[in-house]
Formats: sequence, structure tokens, C-alpha cells
Amino acid sequence: MTKSKVLVAQGGGPTAVINESLVGTILTSREFEDTEAVYGAFHGVRGIVNEDFIDLTGESAENLENVAKTPCSALGSTRDKPDRKYCQDICKVLKAHGIGTFFYIGGNDSSDTLRILAAEAVNADYPLRCIHIPKTIDNDLTVNDHTPGYPSAAKFVASAFAGVNLDNRALKGVYVGVVMGRHAGFLTAAAALGRKYDDGPHLIYLPERDFSIDGFIADVRAAQNKYGRCVIAVSEGIHDDSGELIATKLAQEVESDAHGNVQLSGTGALADLLCAAIREGTGQKRVRGDTFGYLQRSFLGCVSDVDQKEAREVGVAAARFAHEGDKDGTVTIHRTGSGASYAAEYKLSRLEDVAGKTKVMADEFIAANGHDVTGAFVDYLKPLLGSGMAETYRLEAEKVEKILGK
Amino acid sequence: MTKSKVLVAQGGGPTAVINESLVGTILTSREFEDTEAVYGAFHGVRGIVNEDFIDLTGESAENLENVAKTPCSALGSTRDKPDRKYCQDICKVLKAHGIGTFFYIGGNDSSDTLRILAAEAVNADYPLRCIHIPKTIDNDLTVNDHTPGYPSAAKFVASAFAGVNLDNRALKGVYVGVVMGRHAGFLTAAAALGRKYDDGPHLIYLPERDFSIDGFIADVRAAQNKYGRCVIAVSEGIHDDSGELIATKLAQEVESDAHGNVQLSGTGALADLLCAAIREGTGQKRVRGDTFGYLQRSFLGCVSDVDQKEAREVGVAAARFAHEGDKDGTVTIHRTGSGASYAAEYKLSRLEDVAGKTKVMADEFIAANGHDVTGAFVDYLKPLLGSGMAETYRLEAEKVEKILGK
Repeated sequence: MTKSKVLVAQGGGPTAVINESLVGTILTSREFEDTEAVYGAFHGVRGIVNEDFIDLTGESAENLENVAKTPCSALGSTRDKPDRKYCQDICKVLKAHGIGTFFYIGGNDSSDTLRILAAEAVNADYPLRCIHIPKTIDNDLTVNDHTPGYPSAAKFVASAFAGVNLDNRALKGVYVGVVMGRHAGFLTAAAALGRKYDDGPHLIYLPERDFSIDGFIADVRAAQNKYGRCVIAVSEGIHDDSGELIATKLAQEVESDAHGNVQLSGTGALADLLCAAIREGTGQKRVRGDTFGYLQRSFLGCVSDVDQKEAREVGVAAARFAHEGDKDGTVTIHRTGSGASYAAEYKLSRLEDVAGKTKVMADEFIAANGHDVTGAFVDYLKPLLGSGMAETYRLEAEKVEKILGK
Repeated sequence: MTKSKVLVAQGGGPTAVINESLVGTILTSREFEDTEAVYGAFHGVRGIVNEDFIDLTGESAENLENVAKTPCSALGSTRDKPDRKYCQDICKVLKAHGIGTFFYIGGNDSSDTLRILAAEAVNADYPLRCIHIPKTIDNDLTVNDHTPGYPSAAKFVASAFAGVNLDNRALKGVYVGVVMGRHAGFLTAAAALGRKYDDGPHLIYLPERDFSIDGFIADVRAAQNKYGRCVIAVSEGIHDDSGELIATKLAQEVESDAHGNVQLSGTGALADLLCAAIREGTGQKRVRGDTFGYLQRSFLGCVSDVDQKEAREVGVAAARFAHEGDKDGTVTIHRTGSGASYAAEYKLSRLEDVAGKTKVMADEFIAANGHDVTGAFVDYLKPLLGSGMAETYRLEAEKVEKILGK
């Protein structure tokens, strides 16, 4: 038996359950006798070229289990997108350290890195097994039914909207919540899962549909007339019919403003600009906007137990596919049951079927009016949120008859 | 025995546990034989002058318990601050409906309303018992050790910072989180409870101390040098030594910007302006800012169980004080033990000792450097957060020696 080392790293934006995948991969890899050692690279591929490794072979299972429950990439992450040259450098380092298998936990960029790296390893005649482990709160990986990290972020967004709905009902007005997801609207759409009674979000705007300011103002007016208030979920990636981001467009209308240089996350610009547009377009005075920002992917203590379980399982599956098979690939999640009998299974798919590709919401998930989701989407997301999603209630008592009758 | 009706209403900003107080008051009042009926007014004092009442005498205990666990004022709220004339109108309506006791759940404005109203009732020779029930996420009521609603909001802020800390550790840079609290820094200070290891917030800015942009930039530089990253908690109410809000000041430096009209909550302006100042002052590129906004007071599923219990108990205590005593007043919370033996008791204090007054953080809670909290503050807040605050963990493995040695 030839022993070789295993390396694991994390790339792209952190999620609440990404360390479950990490720990699943480490613990399962350690079970195999031909695993000489399990290394972790700090800050993804950047840590590989810098030889910034730790030896996880002896890390206690107890601490690993604690880390698994801790949100955000325990090994650190990177936004580096390696080209061929970068991948050749990675190959040199992996070879020098005797790495036989590389697990990269990440989204579509990370899977694309593995696709390039796997080809470079073949070119260099270096026997390297490359396995991609999916994660992204954007839920935008092709082939997958959904991706680890999304359900927990979705639970955060649904819980946040359930709360601001109640807040908006207590002190009426218009509320805009801006949610992450530049190209895919899955996370914004999750706002619908916080609904009960006639609660909002009364309007949901996704990047899968063109956004028009005039149409938006008309929608807000109509919702205001119907509900006496209005709660709105907006994706940070909304754009007009020419593809121009609304954040850019509105910022340009405000001369020399602080947000000239549009950056979608980590700024409240889009929410503020939409609020200004609502004030101007409807005359409504109490208009408030929040940008959910980094809270939605990192919040401590808002995790879907289904997500947690699946994130662990894709890590375990990755280690097994690497050990038992002879193919590079990406672990993909496939739904095998719906509603109460929801279940998932894992396959090893081809890297090129996922690498660098982006999945957006299917038409059947988006309401015909363009500013809501369908029941099919609610059915899709509900089982992923897992247990422990609190429910909201209202008082049911009858009105008292007026005496002074004003 | 003279029977009379009891009325309860909610004023000011909602909290996560305000309905526990509502339900405590309703259920306890219903136990007394001389309670003819329990009414609720929609949208606080506004609902009283509009005779917008519901009869809660027969509301099922089961639904009340469900409502108690639902965040945000179930009866709706108001920002109205009644003057004498408004209170005379309230008196007329209360008299017409035979209300003998009025419970108002709210902050310092609501207690001030009760103070004026109680005086008007005496003037009008109308026997009305006025009891104020405390709530506010700002934790700024005098006499009280702390106020219901604050611990749950504090748990949200601590959990959020614990998460963004880990996020910032994974993808380094500078992070600014803006927290509610215009005059009192208690909620911003709660960010410190999310700390572990060398985690942030590395800097905490409170409205109790003057803020200087130059000092701020120097602090950020120093933290960057020390930690290689920097997480910052900022109160929305920070101001310079002349008392001018930093949000206003920075907005003025940006010519004709979208935020000319400064509004603290429901806008990302302060976070964005501070981020721009950091970029300019430190040269750091990855600078991100979030404004926690309405999420921190309404989020579904982030509640302190101690807060929940105490919010119920102040409602119960209010009903008992009204029934057993012969004085108007405000229910106040007093700490009777510290650390693991933390406990609280409730007293009826004079309305004028709380009404319209604002408590800010004591000097002993603020670090000498002006941008951190003390251990005394951590000891003060910790028992209020209750059980179930998740802990974070890091990998402990040793570094692997470099081979290529770059």
C-alpha cells in the first residue's frame, strides 16, 4: 500500500456550516490506513503557494467537533482565482509535500481552480486526486439541488424578515431589506419563508428579473394601499433591462455622492438609494432600509440542522469518493424525496459540469408578476430550513365597540 | 367590591420580549376578581384617543402564550409623545370605557406620558391607577439595573460580532458594525461579549465618549498592526467634542450627498462614511461596513431566556402592584446577586424618577482608552444573556515546516 498525504483548504465566502465539511473530510480521511497525514492550508490556494500548512493528523476529535459547530472557514479563505501559472506553482508545492489528494471546499470559482489544477497535474504527470466540496450561501452551483451554507443563510434571512415584518406591523411604514446574491436570487427569495398572515415581504425583487424604478414605485404604492404598510426584500444584484446594476444607476442620479464607486456588499448604498426613491415616489415618510451584509453568512447561532448534517455528509462523501474511486470530481447534492420525506444523496460529478458555472432560480420558482416567489419555491426551501424555525402569532380578540365614536 | 376594567398598551420601539410583559400583565390581571375586563389598545396612546381597543378578557391562554414568544409589540406601537391636551383626551376615553388601571409598556417617553396622564387624572378627579412597565433595547432607564428587551438585543449583537469576527479572520480586512443606541452605549458595548482568543471587536466606540476622526484612524492603524485585521463596533450616536453627530459631520464633508438629511436608524450612511474615512486614512482596501438596523431588535429566534423570564415577571409584578397597592409608579428591576448567583427583584418606583430621564453607561464600564469596555461591564452583561449562547473554537494543530521555503 502506498501512503500519501491529504490536503484540505477552504475558498471563497465563509458560511455557517463550512467547517462541518472540513471536519467530515478530515475525520473520514484519517480513517483510511493509506492516509499518511492530513494537512490543512491557510487561506485557500494562497496558503498552498505560501506553504502555509498545519498538520491536522493529530488534531483531537473533540476540538474538531467544536470547530465543526463554529461558523466561518476555520482555515481562513481567499478570493484568489488561480490561472495556469498559479496552478503550476500549486502543483510544485503539493508535489514537494507528497500530497496525493486535494480537497477544496468552495463555490464555482473554487471548482474552476480545481478544474485547471487537475489538468496541470496531468500535464506534469503528477498523480493528484482533486475533489471539490460544495459550499455557497448563493446556492448557485449547477448540478446540485442546493448547496451547503445556503439553508442556514436562508434561515437567517427568513428569521430576519419574520422579525422586521412584526416590527413594521407595530410601527407602520415601508421597509427595504437588501440581501446578498449578485446573480442568483435564492437567498433573497428565502425572505418569503418568514411570512404568515398578511405579512411581508409583500414584494420580492430578484436578479433573475429586470428591475424598473417606475414599476417598483407602482408596486410599493399598491402594497401600501392594500396592507397599509410594505415590507420589501431586494437582492443586491437587481439590474435594469440593459443589465446595469440599480445600485450604480441610482448612485449616478445622486451627483458626486459617497457611493460613486459601487460595491454591493459591506455598504448600505442600495438600501438607502431605494428608500430615497420610495420617499420621493410615494410621499411616504417612514421609510427604513437595512442591508443584511455579513450577518447573513456568519451569524453565530442561526443554523439549519439539515444544512449542518448535509455539510458534514458532503465532506465525508468527498473523502470516500477520493479513497474508493479513481476520478477527480465535485461532490453534488441530489434530492430524493420532497416535503416531510425530504432526503438527499451525494454523487461525484465532473468538475467541468460545475466549474465556473452559475445556476439561477428556475422560472417555476418566480411568480408571474415578477416580484414574488411561487409555492413551488416555498416547497423547495422549507425542508432545507430544518427544525427550530420559530413561528409567529397574533392576538385574536374582538374589537371593543367605540363609545365616544370619534 | 367595585369592579373596573384594566387597559394595557405598548409604546416606542418593539423588542424581542415585549409581548412577555403584555401577557404577564393580562394573565395576572385576569386572576383578580375585581377585574371586570382586560382591554388592549392598538398602537399605544394613539389607539386610546382613537378608541381602538380589543377585549382580551377571553383571549385563550394558549394563544397568549404563543404571542408571548413572538417578538415585537403585538398591540402595535406609536412614537406619539402626548402633551397635557393629548392626556386630557386620553382621560376622557378611559373614563368613558370605565378603565380603572392603565398599564403602559415602554421606555422613558412612555413613562413620561404616564407621569403627565396621572397628574391629569388627579386634576380631573378621576381615580386612575397608572403603572409603567419597562422595556427598551437601549437599556437607558434610570433606577433599573437593566431593562427587558436589552438582554435579547445584546445577545443578537454579541452573536453577530462573534460571527463577523470569524468572517473577518477568514478574509482579512477592516469591518465596521454600527449598532443602535443614540445616547447610551449599552447595546454597542454588548459586542464585547462575542469575543474569544484575540478576536474583535478590537475597537468599541460609545456615545458616552467624544469621537475624533483622527483618533479613530490612529486606533484602526494600531489594531491593524497588532492583529493584521480590525473589527470595530460603533454606536450610531457617536459625536465629536462639540456634541455634533459624526454621521452629520462626515456627511457634510461629502458634498451634496444622498445622506444630507441624517437619520440614524434605517440607513447605512454612518457605516459607509466611516468605511470611506478608513480607506482614505489607512490605505486599507478591504473595508466593509454593516448597519445592524432593525434586525437587532426584532430578529426571530435570538432571545435571552433570562430576558424572556424577566419580561414576563415585570408584567406580572405590574398587575400585582396595581391590584395590591394604591400608588402609581413604574416597575423597576434590581439585581440581587452577581455571576452564577445572579437574580433580580422588582419594585414599584416613582414615575418621576424614571420619566423622561436617560441613563448612560457608568464610567466603570468604559475602558480608560475610551474605545473598549471593562471587565466590570462583561460581568454585568454576561448573566443577562442567559443560556444557549454558542461558543467559537479554532483549530489547534501545529504548523508544517516549509520545504520549498519561499
